[in-house]
Amino acid sequence: MLGGELKNFVSTLRVLVDEAKLTVGPDGITSRAVDPANVAMYDLELSAAAFESYESSDGLLGVNLERFESVLKLAKKDDLVQVSFDTSTYKLLIVIDGVEFTMACIDPDSIRQEPEIPEMELPINLTVEGSQISRAVKAADMVSDHIGFRCVEADETVFIEAEGDTDDVSLRLIADEYESLDAADGRALFSLDYIKNISKKLPKTEDVTLTFGDQFPMLVDYEIADGECSVAAMVAPRIET
Amino acid sequence: MLGGELKNFVSTLRVLVDEAKLTVGPDGITSRAVDPANVAMYDLELSAAAFESYESSDGLLGVNLERFESVLKLAKKDDLVQVSFDTSTYKLLIVIDGVEFTMACIDPDSIRQEPEIPEMELPINLTVEGSQISRAVKAADMVSDHIGFRCVEADETVFIEAEGDTDDVSLRLIADEYESLDAADGRALFSLDYIKNISKKLPKTEDVTLTFGDQFPMLVDYEIADGECSVAAMVAPRIET
Amino acid sequence: MLGGELKNFVSTLRVLVDEAKLTVGPDGITSRAVDPANVAMYDLELSAAAFESYESSDGLLGVNLERFESVLKLAKKDDLVQVSFDTSTYKLLIVIDGVEFTMACIDPDSIRQEPEIPEMELPINLTVEGSQISRAVKAADMVSDHIGFRCVEADETVFIEAEGDTDDVSLRLIADEYESLDAADGRALFSLDYIKNISKKLPKTEDVTLTFGDQFPMLVDYEIADGECSVAAMVAPRIET
Repeated sequence: MLGGELKNFVSTLRVLVDEAKLTVGPDGITSRAVDPANVAMYDLELSAAAFESYESSDGLLGVNLERFESVLKLAKKDDLVQVSFDTSTYKLLIVIDGVEFTMACIDPDSIRQEPEIPEMELPINLTVEGSQISRAVKAADMVSDHIGFRCVEADETVFIEAEGDTDDVSLRLIADEYESLDAADGRALFSLDYIKNISKKLPKTEDVTLTFGDQFPMLVDYEIADGECSVAAMVAPRIET
Repeated sequence: MLGGELKNFVSTLRVLVDEAKLTVGPDGITSRAVDPANVAMYDLELSAAAFESYESSDGLLGVNLERFESVLKLAKKDDLVQVSFDTSTYKLLIVIDGVEFTMACIDPDSIRQEPEIPEMELPINLTVEGSQISRAVKAADMVSDHIGFRCVEADETVFIEAEGDTDDVSLRLIADEYESLDAADGRALFSLDYIKNISKKLPKTEDVTLTFGDQFPMLVDYEIADGECSVAAMVAPRIET
Repeated sequence: MLGGELKNFVSTLRVLVDEAKLTVGPDGITSRAVDPANVAMYDLELSAAAFESYESSDGLLGVNLERFESVLKLAKKDDLVQVSFDTSTYKLLIVIDGVEFTMACIDPDSIRQEPEIPEMELPINLTVEGSQISRAVKAADMVSDHIGFRCVEADETVFIEAEGDTDDVSLRLIADEYESLDAADGRALFSLDYIKNISKKLPKTEDVTLTFGDQFPMLVDYEIADGECSVAAMVAPRIET
């Protein structure tokens, strides 16, 4: 697999956790990571097709992401990275341009269990270039610790907005500026820290889909690794006072 | 107005102060900023012609420059930035590529008054590329906390020089290396911190004019915003012992 | 002499010491620097031919490298730097693009004496591109504080390897990947800090020669300044437990 894409996979999980359970199988690798405060979650599905060659039976690995990420720093963006798992020693073997790393895995049972996800009806669905969200998040960061996503159905418009003690900021997205919108009236407020970290990993020039509702959690969906890895983030809202 | 130019205007004032009074009027915006120790001063005159379109009645605004500067970070160099003032809410509205900031102004009376400037006769006038001054300042910084500007009339030469405990540094500017010189014998010594901060904002490849005299303040004059904003800095000398 | 090359000469010595004795003479400049713990040593020989023009009688100068290095920061890579020594004031005069620095020298007797170097038989001799060593050192740094160099005579192979508490790393260099090898069985272990600092100064795309033996010191030889400056580093091994 290309170094840049594997780095992206690992660093996305690292936004929320330092250790992760990877579920491996013949079709690829999946992982669900939930932050310690249970506010945000990532679901990643990395297809076998993302690899030059891939072979795996079913299994569960506990991986120290921090260590994995530091090993991957040795790989340039276009270096092929070779990863294999030795079931007898419970170690990962990572080969980057002739350098071999042997990395011990962690007992997956020692890693925090993810919570159950409730079923939700989220009526608002916005698809927009990742850079639009990043820009609004950067702007919000200048005035507040929170960020709101608000949809006005009649105007087919979404506002990403933040209110500080003295200053406010707002990005209005009208029809020309988004790819598609299922509109409904509603607004949800989020802790800026979580949105900021998620926003840093968004693809800049590719589409990102936000799904939210009035005072409900928000889903952020997009693809990485040339379409072969789907990323789904979910963030719990803050109660507005 | 272009983001890069407005950033330059605001960051120049920020060299000396965190809050500034902007005097607005039909012809443009002016501001005088003096540092808390009354050692250095900036006079900026930003012409209405620096803007794509400009309209203003006479008024006085108190602006938090730190906050203004951080908002402008969102603008790329060539982004158009739109600034308007709401006289009813006493707030600035800044629009950068679709993102709207609403920024509260400060009561101008709460900002420190600038002192009166005495009339001075400064016989030495040197016009030279900004990079020459920056280089000499960087060099001086390696050996001392002070920097001297000295003119020798007979040689039509200016020395920018610094003396440390064990090491010295000197840049000699002779006829070929400056644009023009009104020579007179004299030397003035300055605190390096102030000259260093002023030097960081100098245009590198454009002309800068230094006007000074024996043990007198120095004026540093140049233009930014494609000639539509004049900058005049003044620094008080240190008494030589 | 070119700024980039002189910076390289000074910063190589700076890896181990802050002050150095430079032995100057008609043929060039030599210096031997040993770190305070006597673990590593540099021998540099800078030929007179490295300079555009060079003239010197025999002498010994004590130089504050930290200060020298900071002065050289003013020089761009291709700036000519002019260095002369005033025997009456015991000061160096450094001229960089019109800026003159006068820098006091240090009494060479106040600088630590270098130890005697014992004669050694080192049977293994590997010549390889500098980047190969740098890569292995970076990888070792992720798992351990030590790094081993091991040669297997029968395979004509050298391993650069490190063992951590849970993770290991290894770079295997076989016939295609090095320039030349005098093979013998043996392994030597070194403190990673020293190897890391030496590795940072290695030329990336030029050949570097490693000479070592079983549990013996290692020599690292290469050239800088377009072949006009030879660098020889020596590092003492760590005893394996």
